[in-house]
Amino acid sequence: MKKILFGICGLLCAYVAQAQKQPYQYVKPIIGTEKMGHTYPGATVPFGAVQLSPETDTLSYEQNGKYNGDVYKYCAGYQYSDKTIVGFSHTHFSGTGHSDLGDFLIMPTTGKLQLNPGTANEPQSGYRSAFSHDTEVSEANYYKVKLTDHQITAEMTTSARVGFHQYTFPKSDQSHIILDLISGIYNYGDKNVWTYLRVVNDTLVTGYRQTSGWARTRTVYFAMTFSKPIASYGQKNYDPKQVYRGFWGKFDQTKDFPEMAGRKIRAYFDFKTTEGEKIKIKFALSPVSQENALENMRAEIPGWDFEKVKRDGQQAWNKELNKIAVNTLNEDDKVNFYTAMYHTFINPTLYTDVNGAYRGLDQNNHQAKGFDNYSTFSLWDTYRALHPLFNIIQQKRNGDMVSSMMAHYDQSSLKMLPVWSNSANDNWCMSGYHSVSVIADAIIKGNYTGDASAALDACVTTAKHRSYEGIGEYMDKGYVASESNGNSVSNTLEYAYDDWCIAQLAKKLNNTAVYNEFIKRSENWKNVYDAKSGFMRPRLKSGTFREKFDVLSTNGQGFIEGNTWNYSLYVPHNPEAMIALRGGKKHFATHLDSLFTMHLPDEFFAETEDITREGIIGNYVHGNEPAHHAAYLYNYTTTPWKTQDRVRMILKKMYKPSSDGLGGNDDCGQMSAWFIFSSLGFYPMAPGSLNYELGSPAVINATLNLENGKTFKVTTKNQSDKNVYVSQVILNGAILKRRSITHEEIMKGGEIQFIMSAKPNTKAL
Amino acid sequence: MKKILFGICGLLCAYVAQAQKQPYQYVKPIIGTEKMGHTYPGATVPFGAVQLSPETDTLSYEQNGKYNGDVYKYCAGYQYSDKTIVGFSHTHFSGTGHSDLGDFLIMPTTGKLQLNPGTANEPQSGYRSAFSHDTEVSEANYYKVKLTDHQITAEMTTSARVGFHQYTFPKSDQSHIILDLISGIYNYGDKNVWTYLRVVNDTLVTGYRQTSGWARTRTVYFAMTFSKPIASYGQKNYDPKQVYRGFWGKFDQTKDFPEMAGRKIRAYFDFKTTEGEKIKIKFALSPVSQENALENMRAEIPGWDFEKVKRDGQQAWNKELNKIAVNTLNEDDKVNFYTAMYHTFINPTLYTDVNGAYRGLDQNNHQAKGFDNYSTFSLWDTYRALHPLFNIIQQKRNGDMVSSMMAHYDQSSLKMLPVWSNSANDNWCMSGYHSVSVIADAIIKGNYTGDASAALDACVTTAKHRSYEGIGEYMDKGYVASESNGNSVSNTLEYAYDDWCIAQLAKKLNNTAVYNEFIKRSENWKNVYDAKSGFMRPRLKSGTFREKFDVLSTNGQGFIEGNTWNYSLYVPHNPEAMIALRGGKKHFATHLDSLFTMHLPDEFFAETEDITREGIIGNYVHGNEPAHHAAYLYNYTTTPWKTQDRVRMILKKMYKPSSDGLGGNDDCGQMSAWFIFSSLGFYPMAPGSLNYELGSPAVINATLNLENGKTFKVTTKNQSDKNVYVSQVILNGAILKRRSITHEEIMKGGEIQFIMSAKPNTKAL
Repeated sequence: MKKILFGICGLLCAYVAQAQKQPYQYVKPIIGTEKMGHTYPGATVPFGAVQLSPETDTLSYEQNGKYNGDVYKYCAGYQYSDKTIVGFSHTHFSGTGHSDLGDFLIMPTTGKLQLNPGTANEPQSGYRSAFSHDTEVSEANYYKVKLTDHQITAEMTTSARVGFHQYTFPKSDQSHIILDLISGIYNYGDKNVWTYLRVVNDTLVTGYRQTSGWARTRTVYFAMTFSKPIASYGQKNYDPKQVYRGFWGKFDQTKDFPEMAGRKIRAYFDFKTTEGEKIKIKFALSPVSQENALENMRAEIPGWDFEKVKRDGQQAWNKELNKIAVNTLNEDDKVNFYTAMYHTFINPTLYTDVNGAYRGLDQNNHQAKGFDNYSTFSLWDTYRALHPLFNIIQQKRNGDMVSSMMAHYDQSSLKMLPVWSNSANDNWCMSGYHSVSVIADAIIKGNYTGDASAALDACVTTAKHRSYEGIGEYMDKGYVASESNGNSVSNTLEYAYDDWCIAQLAKKLNNTAVYNEFIKRSENWKNVYDAKSGFMRPRLKSGTFREKFDVLSTNGQGFIEGNTWNYSLYVPHNPEAMIALRGGKKHFATHLDSLFTMHLPDEFFAETEDITREGIIGNYVHGNEPAHHAAYLYNYTTTPWKTQDRVRMILKKMYKPSSDGLGGNDDCGQMSAWFIFSSLGFYPMAPGSLNYELGSPAVINATLNLENGKTFKVTTKNQSDKNVYVSQVILNGAILKRRSITHEEIMKGGEIQFIMSAKPNTKAL
Repeated sequence: MKKILFGICGLLCAYVAQAQKQPYQYVKPIIGTEKMGHTYPGATVPFGAVQLSPETDTLSYEQNGKYNGDVYKYCAGYQYSDKTIVGFSHTHFSGTGHSDLGDFLIMPTTGKLQLNPGTANEPQSGYRSAFSHDTEVSEANYYKVKLTDHQITAEMTTSARVGFHQYTFPKSDQSHIILDLISGIYNYGDKNVWTYLRVVNDTLVTGYRQTSGWARTRTVYFAMTFSKPIASYGQKNYDPKQVYRGFWGKFDQTKDFPEMAGRKIRAYFDFKTTEGEKIKIKFALSPVSQENALENMRAEIPGWDFEKVKRDGQQAWNKELNKIAVNTLNEDDKVNFYTAMYHTFINPTLYTDVNGAYRGLDQNNHQAKGFDNYSTFSLWDTYRALHPLFNIIQQKRNGDMVSSMMAHYDQSSLKMLPVWSNSANDNWCMSGYHSVSVIADAIIKGNYTGDASAALDACVTTAKHRSYEGIGEYMDKGYVASESNGNSVSNTLEYAYDDWCIAQLAKKLNNTAVYNEFIKRSENWKNVYDAKSGFMRPRLKSGTFREKFDVLSTNGQGFIEGNTWNYSLYVPHNPEAMIALRGGKKHFATHLDSLFTMHLPDEFFAETEDITREGIIGNYVHGNEPAHHAAYLYNYTTTPWKTQDRVRMILKKMYKPSSDGLGGNDDCGQMSAWFIFSSLGFYPMAPGSLNYELGSPAVINATLNLENGKTFKVTTKNQSDKNVYVSQVILNGAILKRRSITHEEIMKGGEIQFIMSAKPNTKAL
């Protein structure tokens, strides 16, 4: 009886606990912080401009200016296996494979002032501190850790534009807050251009930092305020070229001198603290000015209530995460699901002040009228599934993101839409001009309220920028020649897809001329298909295919982040034609099987970037993006049920609720967006199309709470980890006789039910 | 008959010519461009933000970072003795002894593109060109020269914020305009921080330049437009650390790439030109933004009419110069007079955009409400005579200058009024806190419409900034001790005078407490007077005077830019007491005679800064400022007429209408302001007082056209170069029984007549 009662209680309590547990409580920002995930464990709000997170090392650059693999590890500033924390900085990319940011590193210390960071092996040699994961709490919008060397508990939370630090000090006459203006994240050397700092009064400091990193000409302004008056302060300038010349020498500028400026400055602020005394810091950012940073701070966090700011941010997360209410087979799946959603709602990041001002690509300040301006567009990654996900559950924001891209275009002296937009700069990372995919998809799906015709013009102009990565040649010859650039095949394939997007947009806008031109261009993928080898292959200017060719290799083969096994699948807009050309449905099914089951020798794995060994299945590279649609291609073969199997396998293998749970860079949410779509049972094979390929849902059920007030439900019958096959799909009560659903079907609300089974339904459509 | 007719015609024509010749036509900007004058020959309008002038060398910094005497020569970018021109840049100080500016050097060339400047000995080795003074025209707001190596005639003129270039090219398929963003003027090494440039379209380029020179954190924005479309363009980046990394390599950024950014960039623009074809460039500056630069350009020079802009600027000069209509004994005197006036109306310089925006000391952008904001305050120099001159003939502007100082104070985290304000920075050059003199003088003379009480507060707070150059010790001990800083005696003397100014202002505002405090402080000069030596002398913390003491030496003696012979005279606010303490009127008269007649040995002359041998008379150093009032001190002795003789001698010896006509740095107009006052027959011994010491006018007559609509006339009888003595002064018809006039007497209009004589009137008061 006791046992039975206990059993009942156990079930009940679990039920009650689960009922009371809110989505944000399933978020584990620590997922992906080990090895290649390149996510960060710190605090941020959805799409927040501030990402306040610990740095576990300061290998922000190496001395000889060469690429350093160790630095690559710190794209997000944090590696789970590290034993020390250097400090907490305010800006971080989530999941990138190149690096920048890491602005305004703050570190609280006690004891003798040390202004150098020290080394990981000897943290006592500098201001850094050892820490243990046992003391670490990493939640949505909250991070906490004990800095053991200084006996300080560090806590942080944020609003959209303000980082909020709370440090609990021991009793000490020598408590310090260090503001390291040298520290930063960057793969390729010293990026500091200039820093300026002004102690306005004994609680307020403002200034800015200019860097030339991945973003070449970038300035971040700040306003920093302390909850307790500064007792004294000072700086050390590490630039040997910068001396206090001439009449500057009138002042001892190292101590209590309120104007600091230079290329390599570390500042510090001294306090006396009692046991357990909390010193709080609000640190606001602006892309425009010190004043705007201060205005952002006053607007977003007027008081000093840390718990309220934390709570508000977590409720903001909850609101966003609740857009998909999900039930899963187990807690881990739910953690994975909401953490993936969390990771999809980090980038792009807000790049507008509360008053609407932002810095544009032209380095002028602009006023965002009728939209919030965003930055951090990792478009080669995110056009695939992240922006399509937004077109369902972040419609307003995705419209603003298109407006941001259009503003970028208007400010571009190159007259190009963004390729990889970072803080009022473009770094042109990766291939293609995929902003056209995002724009077409958003307009076709009705999420952009701006001038669609102007958007089409911007797409066309970008796609005709002859001097950009072989576009001229592509326009003349129908392909980028191998001699012209190292990514010639990737470029040709991606341009062809992007051109198809432009054609779809033109069609939507009844622009026949543009449609005809670009639908023709969209067939250019055929020009790099080598029937002899059966693969997409580098082609010479002469028209013949290149002799030198290795189907397993990535480097020097005309591809980027994927060998031809993966890239040859890349005709998302016309898989039927691609499959027909490659030997037909049956042959292609076997080919896909090989992809997932063959062995990629180590020498070739080493060439894939940004992923761990766990990031591949056979020769299918999920940790990179080019073949993200590959599993869904089975839908077009004689063995369509294999999509269901593969998708469930990828979901299980590639996403785990642990620090090393991501097999590759999360890539600003693209990896996570793949997870969300695939967990729900459908996937946007070709953004720009209104169709979603059906796969195999991993959830028990999910309710999509749409911005139009409607709900779209995904339900399952017989769901289990073994029942990965879909024997029947019922849409709004009727059996669905296709392997896709449409955007309209989702957005008008309703229910899609998947009948699950351990065996494939080989008879189903 | 013929001869007679010719003679009559000669006289008549000369008369007509003189009658038609306007004041601006007497201006010779070339005066002071040789040796130590440090003026520039280029184009500017009164108080203009743009000073467009040739650079004759690019020794803008030397490689080893040490001070370089050769660089010092180029404070204004131009030395008359040089044989080559490197280019034309848009910002120049007039007459300073430290350097900065030289922004945006433009050079037109033909033939093979050369992006390095080349050397003076081999101009063909780079883009520079030989030139001859024979082809040079240097007028108020107009400069012209033939660049012989390129067969290009260069002409330039300006509006307040825009430089207007006009280059007449030969026929060439290879005509270039080089924009050198590396070139700049600075004594102490490489000051470039960052430059950004954007080719907006084929006639418009915008961008900015950041430097850390004499102004530590300075940015100048620009907008540049060509009258003819650019055929092609490019850049070379000279920073070995700045490579086109990663995806930047997608573009050939050296050619026709519209976004340039870096620390060391030279850009060029190519054209094809026909014989005699003019390419015009409008180059606008802004302290705030690229957009404001463009707005400044559109507002000030909407079209392409070079002659109109030149004419408008020259008429603007005429308007200002007409504030004193003068008749002189000869043409040279008139040239000297109007060139001196020209030099007094160059600084401070406008630092506000047409829309009222400017960058403040706090590096925030501000809106100037109700005033124009100014920069370039060389206050240690200009408080003496330049701002007092403005209080008579630039009342409105001087009020705006006080407003600018108050804005500086409000933006100062140090809570200090400006010492030497340059482009939103203070370099704290020289000693004292002389902004209080300028402010007190302006308020006492009724030229500041702002909050006088707030101004007094700012003066008091500045004067009590204990950590600034010994002020704390000065407040505690009544003097700055020799151990405390190298300028201890100068500081004590100048603080005492400044304190007297604060007392005068307090009196004006009926603030008895401040008056009492500062009138007491104003007597501190007595604390550094050593009765034993009869000189002001460094005093130790202990109270005893320093043993080591050399009355002829400047270096290491506690003085700055003046030995104790000069500095011991520095009690402008209480000469009677100073003279009494130093042995009385008769003894002091002899002492003054010695000053003007003794020989300063070469070893000590070498220690005086910023002047040529011609810049001294005996041991009286006119080329520096501390003794600028010395000649007028005779008025307080038993031989008052010697003021008249000395003043006329200084006017003749120190000011000549030639390139080497200035014996020392013009110091932002102070040397020239001394000339104007002294030529008119009166001088402000102690700004803050309403009195002007009478000297000996050098003009035949002069009419001061005051802003209040009244005129004040200075007339003479028996004026000649020999009749330097004043036998009688008649003010508004009545004999004047004092050796001074008051500000009120001038400002209410009227006439002062000086009866001149070859012999002193030893009986006169």
